[in-house]
Amino acid sequence: MKQAIGVIDSGVGGLTVAHELMRQLPKEKLIYLGDTARCPYGPRSKEEVKQFTWEMVDFLLEKNIKMLVVACNTATAFTLKSLKEELDIPVIGVIQPGARAAIKFTRNNHIGVIGTEGTVRSHAYTNALRNIKSELEVNALACPMFVPMVEQGILEGSQAIEVVEDTLAPLLQYSNMDTLILGCTHYPLIKDTIQSVIGQHITIISSSEETARETSTILDVHQLFNKDDIYPVHQFYTTGDLEIFIEISKSIFKEPYLQMVTIEKAYLHQLQDS
Amino acid sequence: MKQAIGVIDSGVGGLTVAHELMRQLPKEKLIYLGDTARCPYGPRSKEEVKQFTWEMVDFLLEKNIKMLVVACNTATAFTLKSLKEELDIPVIGVIQPGARAAIKFTRNNHIGVIGTEGTVRSHAYTNALRNIKSELEVNALACPMFVPMVEQGILEGSQAIEVVEDTLAPLLQYSNMDTLILGCTHYPLIKDTIQSVIGQHITIISSSEETARETSTILDVHQLFNKDDIYPVHQFYTTGDLEIFIEISKSIFKEPYLQMVTIEKAYLHQLQDS
Repeated sequence: MKQAIGVIDSGVGGLTVAHELMRQLPKEKLIYLGDTARCPYGPRSKEEVKQFTWEMVDFLLEKNIKMLVVACNTATAFTLKSLKEELDIPVIGVIQPGARAAIKFTRNNHIGVIGTEGTVRSHAYTNALRNIKSELEVNALACPMFVPMVEQGILEGSQAIEVVEDTLAPLLQYSNMDTLILGCTHYPLIKDTIQSVIGQHITIISSSEETARETSTILDVHQLFNKDDIYPVHQFYTTGDLEIFIEISKSIFKEPYLQMVTIEKAYLHQLQDS
Repeated sequence: MKQAIGVIDSGVGGLTVAHELMRQLPKEKLIYLGDTARCPYGPRSKEEVKQFTWEMVDFLLEKNIKMLVVACNTATAFTLKSLKEELDIPVIGVIQPGARAAIKFTRNNHIGVIGTEGTVRSHAYTNALRNIKSELEVNALACPMFVPMVEQGILEGSQAIEVVEDTLAPLLQYSNMDTLILGCTHYPLIKDTIQSVIGQHITIISSSEETARETSTILDVHQLFNKDDIYPVHQFYTTGDLEIFIEISKSIFKEPYLQMVTIEKAYLHQLQDS
C-alpha cells in the first residue's frame, strides 16, 4: 500500500515545503530527501540537474511513495515535464502553485520573481505565468547570494538586510510589481527580511506554502488522502553531513513537528558507485 | 472538442466565481447557468437541491463542457459527491478550495464559517476542514439575511452594516477565529462590509477566488488548459428574469469583462414541463 508523499530538494530549502505539508496536511506521512552533498543546483547545467533529480526520484520510488513533490525550483524548472510523463504517480513542482497564487493576488498584473540563476535562466515562472495569463508583466531576478547566505544561517540582522537590499535594488527600480514570488524554497527563511526591504505594499508569495496547498488539491482529485487519524512519523534523508542537516531542521521545524521526524543519511546509487 | 468550463449556481452568487475565473484564467471560455427562478437554494431540502442541480448539469452537458464548477455552496454540500461519481469530466465545488485556503492562512487553528442555512446544516465545511486537520476548531453560523440583502443590491452603507453586525455578533462573541470563510458565493459582494465589522485582524477567505484558483490546478492536472491565445466570448444563462440578471451582472463584471459576455434566458427540461 502506497502511503507516503515523497519530497525531493537540492538540500535544506525544501524543508520549508515539508514544514508546510506537515502543517496543512498533518495526517500525511512524508519521506524527504535533500541532496545537500551536491547543493546548490542553481548554477548547474540542465543535464546535471536532471541526472541528480532522477537519482533522488529512484531512491524514493523504492520506498513506495503515492505522490512526488519536487520541492526545488531549479529541479522543477528542468525536470517536471519528464517526471510527469514518465511516473505513474501524481507529480507536483513548486513553480505552478506559486504562479497561480500570484495570479490570484495581483491587481495590477505586474509580478516579480526572484530565484536562483538556473530558475531565472529557464524562464520557468515567466512561462508558467504567461501561459495562463498573457497580459502579465513579469520581472525576474536571479539572487545568487541568497542560498549561500541562508545555508550559513544568516536570516536576519544588518548583514542580511544589506545583502537583500543590494540584490533587490534593480528589481525595485524597474518593476511596478504588487506581488513578488519567492521562486526558491530557501527564501521563505528570509521572508521577513525581504518584506522589510520591499515594503508592506507588495504581497510576497511563498512557493512553499502554495505547493503544500496544491498537494492537498491533487491528493483530493486522485482520492489519495490518508483517512487514518494517526499522526505519522516522517522519514528525512540527506546525502550530506547529518549533523548540519539536523541543526538546520531544528531551526525550521521547532516543536511539535521536530519530534515527528527521523533523520538519516541517504546513499544514492550513483554516489555509492562514484 | 470540449472547450468550455461549465459553471452552475442557484442564482447570481456564482457570478463572483465566474468573475474570478475570467480574471485568473482569461483564456478559458465559460458557460454559466444561474437558476435565479428557483433561488435561493439555502432553505430547500437536500432532495430538492439535488434535483435542481442535476437539471442544471444536464443543461450544460448538452453544451459539451470539459469541466464543471459547482459555484453554489448549498449545491456543493448536497450534490458534489454524486456529481463526481457519475460524471466523466472533472468536477469542483466551492467548499474544498475555501477549506484548504483557510487551513493555509490560520495560525491559531480557529476558523469561522458563514453560509446559508443549508450549507451550515450540512456541516460540509466543518467536515472538509476536520477531515484534513482534526485539531481545527470550527465555528459555523448561518446568515439567512445576507442572500436576500445582496439580491436587493444592498451591499454597503448603514443598513448593510447593521444587518452584518447583528448577524455576526454571536460568532464574534464565542469564536477566537483568525480566519473567516465566506461560505456562500453571494458574500464576496459584501466582503468590505464584513471586514469592517469583524476587524482587520481576521483574514477573510473568499471561496470564489479560491475555487477559481483550484480550477486552474485541476485543468493543469488533467491537461485541459486552453492553449489558444484568443479571448473567448462567455455564454451566460439565467432561468429567471433576464433584465434583473443583466443588471446584477453589470454591477459585478464592469469593463472589460462585461463586453465578453452574452446573456440569455435558459429553459430547463423540468421547468418547461411544469
